[in-house]
Amino acid sequence: MAKGKLRIVPLGGLGEIGKNMTVFEWGNEAMIIDAGIMFPANDMHGVDYIIPDFRYLLERKDLKIHGIAFTHGHEDHIGAVTHVIDAFPNTPIYATPLTAGLIEGKLRDAGLTEKTTVNIFKAGDKFDIGPFKLESYHVTHSIPDCVGFAINTAYGLIVHTGDYKFDNTPVDGKPPDYARIASFSRRGVMLLMGDSTNSDKTGWTPSETVIDGALDRVFRDAKGRILVATFASLISRVQQVANAAQRHGRKIAIAGYSMTRNVEIALELGHLKAPKDLFVDLNKTNNISNNKLVIMVTGSQGEPSAVLARMATGRHRQLEVEKHDTIVLSSHPIPGNEEMVSRNINRLLQRGANVIYDPIESVHVSGHARQDEMMLMLNLVKPKYLLPVHGELRHLHQHAKLAMSAGMPEDRVFVAENGRVLEIDKGGVRLGERVPGGYIFVDGSGVGDIGRVVMRDREILARDGFILVSVNVKRDSGKIIGEPEIISRGFVYLRESDELLDQVRNTIEDTLKKERNSNGRRREKLQDSLGRLFYNETKRRPMVFSIINEY
Amino acid sequence: MAKGKLRIVPLGGLGEIGKNMTVFEWGNEAMIIDAGIMFPANDMHGVDYIIPDFRYLLERKDLKIHGIAFTHGHEDHIGAVTHVIDAFPNTPIYATPLTAGLIEGKLRDAGLTEKTTVNIFKAGDKFDIGPFKLESYHVTHSIPDCVGFAINTAYGLIVHTGDYKFDNTPVDGKPPDYARIASFSRRGVMLLMGDSTNSDKTGWTPSETVIDGALDRVFRDAKGRILVATFASLISRVQQVANAAQRHGRKIAIAGYSMTRNVEIALELGHLKAPKDLFVDLNKTNNISNNKLVIMVTGSQGEPSAVLARMATGRHRQLEVEKHDTIVLSSHPIPGNEEMVSRNINRLLQRGANVIYDPIESVHVSGHARQDEMMLMLNLVKPKYLLPVHGELRHLHQHAKLAMSAGMPEDRVFVAENGRVLEIDKGGVRLGERVPGGYIFVDGSGVGDIGRVVMRDREILARDGFILVSVNVKRDSGKIIGEPEIISRGFVYLRESDELLDQVRNTIEDTLKKERNSNGRRREKLQDSLGRLFYNETKRRPMVFSIINEY
Repeated sequence: MAKGKLRIVPLGGLGEIGKNMTVFEWGNEAMIIDAGIMFPANDMHGVDYIIPDFRYLLERKDLKIHGIAFTHGHEDHIGAVTHVIDAFPNTPIYATPLTAGLIEGKLRDAGLTEKTTVNIFKAGDKFDIGPFKLESYHVTHSIPDCVGFAINTAYGLIVHTGDYKFDNTPVDGKPPDYARIASFSRRGVMLLMGDSTNSDKTGWTPSETVIDGALDRVFRDAKGRILVATFASLISRVQQVANAAQRHGRKIAIAGYSMTRNVEIALELGHLKAPKDLFVDLNKTNNISNNKLVIMVTGSQGEPSAVLARMATGRHRQLEVEKHDTIVLSSHPIPGNEEMVSRNINRLLQRGANVIYDPIESVHVSGHARQDEMMLMLNLVKPKYLLPVHGELRHLHQHAKLAMSAGMPEDRVFVAENGRVLEIDKGGVRLGERVPGGYIFVDGSGVGDIGRVVMRDREILARDGFILVSVNVKRDSGKIIGEPEIISRGFVYLRESDELLDQVRNTIEDTLKKERNSNGRRREKLQDSLGRLFYNETKRRPMVFSIINEY
Repeated sequence: MAKGKLRIVPLGGLGEIGKNMTVFEWGNEAMIIDAGIMFPANDMHGVDYIIPDFRYLLERKDLKIHGIAFTHGHEDHIGAVTHVIDAFPNTPIYATPLTAGLIEGKLRDAGLTEKTTVNIFKAGDKFDIGPFKLESYHVTHSIPDCVGFAINTAYGLIVHTGDYKFDNTPVDGKPPDYARIASFSRRGVMLLMGDSTNSDKTGWTPSETVIDGALDRVFRDAKGRILVATFASLISRVQQVANAAQRHGRKIAIAGYSMTRNVEIALELGHLKAPKDLFVDLNKTNNISNNKLVIMVTGSQGEPSAVLARMATGRHRQLEVEKHDTIVLSSHPIPGNEEMVSRNINRLLQRGANVIYDPIESVHVSGHARQDEMMLMLNLVKPKYLLPVHGELRHLHQHAKLAMSAGMPEDRVFVAENGRVLEIDKGGVRLGERVPGGYIFVDGSGVGDIGRVVMRDREILARDGFILVSVNVKRDSGKIIGEPEIISRGFVYLRESDELLDQVRNTIEDTLKKERNSNGRRREKLQDSLGRLFYNETKRRPMVFSIINEY
């Protein structure tokens, strides 16, 4: 690739586009913004989480990666950092103090601390990553210390919003840096890369502070313990609960490894402000009466292994649902999790808890801008071109429509999927080649060893199960010796269907007799006959295997 | 059971309670309200649909079932009718003309027409089912000819709302029968069984007519074909699209068997009002230009086998997405379907269609009452006791809270799950015994032959797959003959992991050598060793099977 061309390559993200990881290239010099993970869809069986497919970077051996800059500390932006550092050791990291703290925790857990350097900057700071001149600016979201980046290039400014909402009364008292954002337009913005998550919602996302009122009502009415479930990295929410606990004279205990660690880091760095004695160890709450206690837990998404789901099914080692518990779900279901979340709520109610969730109370608001805020961003930044990012294809389309309704010409708005390169040169902006930009499954200890074939097999096994027949035959006569052995799982419960078992035995005998001479293909023939039998009798298509042993 | 006791037994419903089927008993005489199906949750692998578990009725051989009364023609209220008639032949059916027409279609398809009689009544009619004196009353929902029932009993009136909203400008021009509903309170209502679906939503559900305005905007702007996706039984919506098509000079074609049949029935019975030549055969649309055509399709829930999903993935025999298509999703995702619906929208956008869905336009409204309407129902009916029905446990709780906030004493509100009997006698109302009241999976041609064991196996297979090892050994020496055969699916792709294959071979050899003398348990021991190997190497737990053949 000739110098003189700037390329933006969105990599990874499941459903969402330009979210988890984006590469910026200038000739063969590159930098990355964010390295996050996604959670699997309901039909991605057995997958723990998903990382961006950065095969493209591995193949571009000519590319010098000068660093990774992070916008904020949520999992979908930092969760894949250990995978990237593992693949590209010694790539420097750039992050604000809280984000850096959360990243360092991950690096420590993975034993990768020595493999990179973490450079800390403050919102508003300017710094270079290779040839890229970055200018960070403070935005509001649902975690403190959150930034967007303006990138000075040969063709003008590129403004990347990161995740944002315009919250004029944020929890940490630090509103968005409007002055800085507006100043970009005076310098001429070539391209805006803008968060599209809530582009199909009219109006303005409520401020995080509306939650304070809702928490006060909940704390006032609660007769026993209060349990608040939210994301482990939603530090702003922890702050709000801490404030409410102080107002209502309660102590806070934290359950769950990741939330405990994140709270420790945020307290240490001063991003969580609370008196030392507000927090108590979960193991030392016995002498605190129920109406003086708040427990923060993970599992607001119904994740089966998180604290709240284990409580809902009576599988938690320390915590049990008690009669007068008030359980607050302070988060919205991530798309695809609605069913698990509802089930969890119903189970907690069954165990006698009072469960509070939006829309019953405003105990959660989104961290992303809605249409009016997106319009404000467009008018503050005044970009020549727009690349909607963050959100599914439908959200990108809606963001594009919004920009066009505000007068942006259709040919200056680029709706592109992951792996589609955006090229910028003196001639303007255009869509370029496609590179691999999907995602990679992490399942157990394996990264990327579960591909489409295995996933399709899992789907078939999940739907109709399998059946395997092992049969011993005499080599010379083809006669069956003894009883065929049948192993089956996920198919009808064979022991209860004697008739079907008889038919299986008959089919084996008939097929082997008929195919006595078609030596190599007997096995296939047998599998075909059995498959037909099962479909005719049950209208199901289990996987069928056979083993024929000759004596 | 002694006479003098009235029992209400809610059966079936997945997540939702008192929805699909309810039994009313007076001594050993009984009647049923509704017999519907539900769709499986995401983790109910391979299940086609779910019917109420009416084992209780089969076991109560003393019970004389005098009839089944239906509230309206949606699948979750009539879809299991063939299963119930099959189990209890000659049970008479009672339904309004449209509901009866839809039920008769199902009976015909299942060859059960001769096994029952369908008695048609009109909204407002009174009729007896055994000892139960029913009084039907018109309610508004999202299908015409929809009723609730008041049941005269020895202990006063029981009012069952069915599915309802208070729509003052319904599509068919027939508002709810307020006069009749209010008249019940004068006669004294013992118990209200009220729809709770939207109990966590404040306000009043918008009238179906708000959709007309949205459709007009869509029809005005569409340059090419318009495709409208909705439920096959949402007859009111078909009427609205038919009206819009007439206003904008377009013809309508219907794709999909069930929707075609339902439209034919509704047209014939006069519940769908349109000129004969408005509808055209899908095969005869060639001479109609794209901007004069509307196609109604099924698949608004992203169901992979429905018309819209097949179009989205290019698998439909007749229909392909074209560049200027406008596709309208006139429905909300049923909980659990959100992910499939989003994926479908993204795929249709990828193929170049313009996709319109709520919240982009108000192309769908709920058919169920919200809080203000539920309050109105409570105040119109003035029941002594309340049994919230229809909705998940959380919705029932919220309905109960609502009633209590309006002054109903806590001990007169009963939140009960399916299978929990409500007993009424001169002493009042109370919760009684539990009977089986769950659901039964219908999978392929099998009804109820897939139970918890098979479903759990499918879950394990879906997560980590299976591996089977077949090995031939010498009977005397225990030595392995030839190469062990390995069959595996859904686990790591073994052909690509030579190292793991070697370890498998070594483990087999080691284990069989060590366990040479533990004859009966060799197989188990081998499976345990292999399971440990796989977990250590991959952190996954596939199902492990082994076959040991001795020579």
